[in-house]
Amino acid sequence: MIGAGQLARMTHQAAVDLDVELTVMAQADTDPAVRAGARYRIGSHADPAAVSAVAALGDVVTFDHELVPAAVLARLEGAGVVLRPGRRALGFAQDKLAARADFRAAGFAVPAYAPVRAPGEVTDFAAEHGWPVVVKARSGGYDGRGVMVVAGPADIPPDVGSTEAGGEPAGPAWLVEEYVDLVAELAVVVARRPSGAGVVYPIIETTQVDGICRHLVTPAATVGPAVAAEAMRLGTAVADHIGAVGICAVELFVAAGGRLLVNEVAVRPHNSGHATIEANRTSQFHQHLRAVLDWPLGPTDPVAPAAAMVNLIGTADCADPSHNLPTALRVSGAHVHLYGKESRPGRKIGHVTALAATTAEALDVATRAVAALLTP
Amino acid sequence: MIGAGQLARMTHQAAVDLDVELTVMAQADTDPAVRAGARYRIGSHADPAAVSAVAALGDVVTFDHELVPAAVLARLEGAGVVLRPGRRALGFAQDKLAARADFRAAGFAVPAYAPVRAPGEVTDFAAEHGWPVVVKARSGGYDGRGVMVVAGPADIPPDVGSTEAGGEPAGPAWLVEEYVDLVAELAVVVARRPSGAGVVYPIIETTQVDGICRHLVTPAATVGPAVAAEAMRLGTAVADHIGAVGICAVELFVAAGGRLLVNEVAVRPHNSGHATIEANRTSQFHQHLRAVLDWPLGPTDPVAPAAAMVNLIGTADCADPSHNLPTALRVSGAHVHLYGKESRPGRKIGHVTALAATTAEALDVATRAVAALLTP
Repeated sequence: MIGAGQLARMTHQAAVDLDVELTVMAQADTDPAVRAGARYRIGSHADPAAVSAVAALGDVVTFDHELVPAAVLARLEGAGVVLRPGRRALGFAQDKLAARADFRAAGFAVPAYAPVRAPGEVTDFAAEHGWPVVVKARSGGYDGRGVMVVAGPADIPPDVGSTEAGGEPAGPAWLVEEYVDLVAELAVVVARRPSGAGVVYPIIETTQVDGICRHLVTPAATVGPAVAAEAMRLGTAVADHIGAVGICAVELFVAAGGRLLVNEVAVRPHNSGHATIEANRTSQFHQHLRAVLDWPLGPTDPVAPAAAMVNLIGTADCADPSHNLPTALRVSGAHVHLYGKESRPGRKIGHVTALAATTAEALDVATRAVAALLTP
Repeated sequence: MIGAGQLARMTHQAAVDLDVELTVMAQADTDPAVRAGARYRIGSHADPAAVSAVAALGDVVTFDHELVPAAVLARLEGAGVVLRPGRRALGFAQDKLAARADFRAAGFAVPAYAPVRAPGEVTDFAAEHGWPVVVKARSGGYDGRGVMVVAGPADIPPDVGSTEAGGEPAGPAWLVEEYVDLVAELAVVVARRPSGAGVVYPIIETTQVDGICRHLVTPAATVGPAVAAEAMRLGTAVADHIGAVGICAVELFVAAGGRLLVNEVAVRPHNSGHATIEANRTSQFHQHLRAVLDWPLGPTDPVAPAAAMVNLIGTADCADPSHNLPTALRVSGAHVHLYGKESRPGRKIGHVTALAATTAEALDVATRAVAALLTP
């Protein structure tokens, strides 16, 4: 597995159950998966030789992130390395502009968008679609980084469009898209084998603040069963379209009237699937291993009527939430996951899941435990 | 944690969730917990200096087995090391003769028994209680080793009673006890903090073959709710009596008429609690860590109406069950746990848990997956 963050950490825990020999490629020996005891090699995911050396250790290469450059992926595929997911699927997560264009061409509804080569193109787009607009980095953004809501011409950052991507993808480094008035955001988590056989998890409703996922509930609290079913169908179709292998998370916008738009995809275990560890009969991490190894997938049924997950996001005044564990664990039914990461403001350093009779109750439990963990 | 077997392996997985810094004392770097990535030191649990050195690494010492000699435990306690459980509680698991005597004196019903110093004492006991009888090693036995059912005088092994325990415990090395005509065997899994605050898991019914646990179901299939409730009360009282800290598993015999007898205790995570990983809101491994660290305990409620766990026990003709994973995972709902141990006949090398609407259905799922794993 290329990358050794919290996704690799939780994948390692699942690999122990199945006695799968997992080696992670880490940037440092303090990375979350390394601290959890995964075998590791230190190296840069952008260094072709280093990635090739790690790839040679196993039968299958999979990913904790989508940052391996396309050229490195091409070289690996050319050398016969089995990438799961493959380069094409990874491309949908790496290049938001190309993904939007491909999805639109394939008939999937997406927000209106345009490439941006100069600040004036943002103004042109807004003239057609109205203010505010959303300006996004074409690649590399995550957790709200690289995404800006621009209220009017005066707010356009002067450097938008000025950066022509020097490396890859070639072409403009930014895009602008309509600001969708959201009813809700949904995530569809799919697991898919190389043959295309797949399973889908029950619908997940996520809540973002400043572009970073704060919490999720399942089943969806805001949308009805018809929209939920349509979202699951759409998410599965997107995963099929991109040829994902392993976990694929499809993020959907729900606009007025229940209209669904494809926002982004991730082709790896995803934050929106964290509750599956406790809330579903097979966790996304077990499922990812099973899918990339081309083993039969497990059932995705929920084990409780409702679940919620709240991310533990570092704050300026709480240095180490593990000191608060005794207080947080007083919240009955809170499943605490700490990633072994140094706390920094805005950084995801853990999460808490709770199961309950209702999503409101589950969210209350998880929220209280997170509040306890973040107490200065 | 002293010991690095499968119990330490699964404790390590739970420690990752809570970012608890766990170091295990292993006999070899191929031990299951080491293979799962736990930090480790190699050493013998019987070597006082080696155990002291490991103890110095942490705030609390706990155990994957009960094999640390009492003299070593006494030395650690004398040096101010925090043992959880402590020496007294461990003694109940280490010395079956002393445990029987103590339980009887405390008013807990136990099978009739007597110490054995010579084969003739087995005959004397049988004259009073009838044949067959059970002859047991006073200490060190597990998974059926050190336990014999003796049908009549001709079957008494000639060396029984001949071994006077040279080290500890002092006195006879064997005991004889009545052969209880069992209706069922139950396990009561309790988690207990140093203060005595504790929680108990729903009753577990175990099935042994040749003294080794083959499978379990929960709730109990054979006994009714009144006996189950009485068993949970009794198990909790036993855990309190011995002053257990961490997980304590109390094994009970159910004799004719629902009469409950205390058989043995374990003061560590226990095979009878393995289904708690998926079947209960807090696993015994998380609970053990929380209890020995004196943190609040979690809820023990089941997440499904019924669960079953079947041990994966090595056979002569199946070398490596991991080759059969793709077949075993076709059994929908089978939660496979492999311990990374070399397969040997009679050795516990993994287990499979299943949740279902009924214990029969859960047992069927888990049994089918185990059969697939053991296919030559």
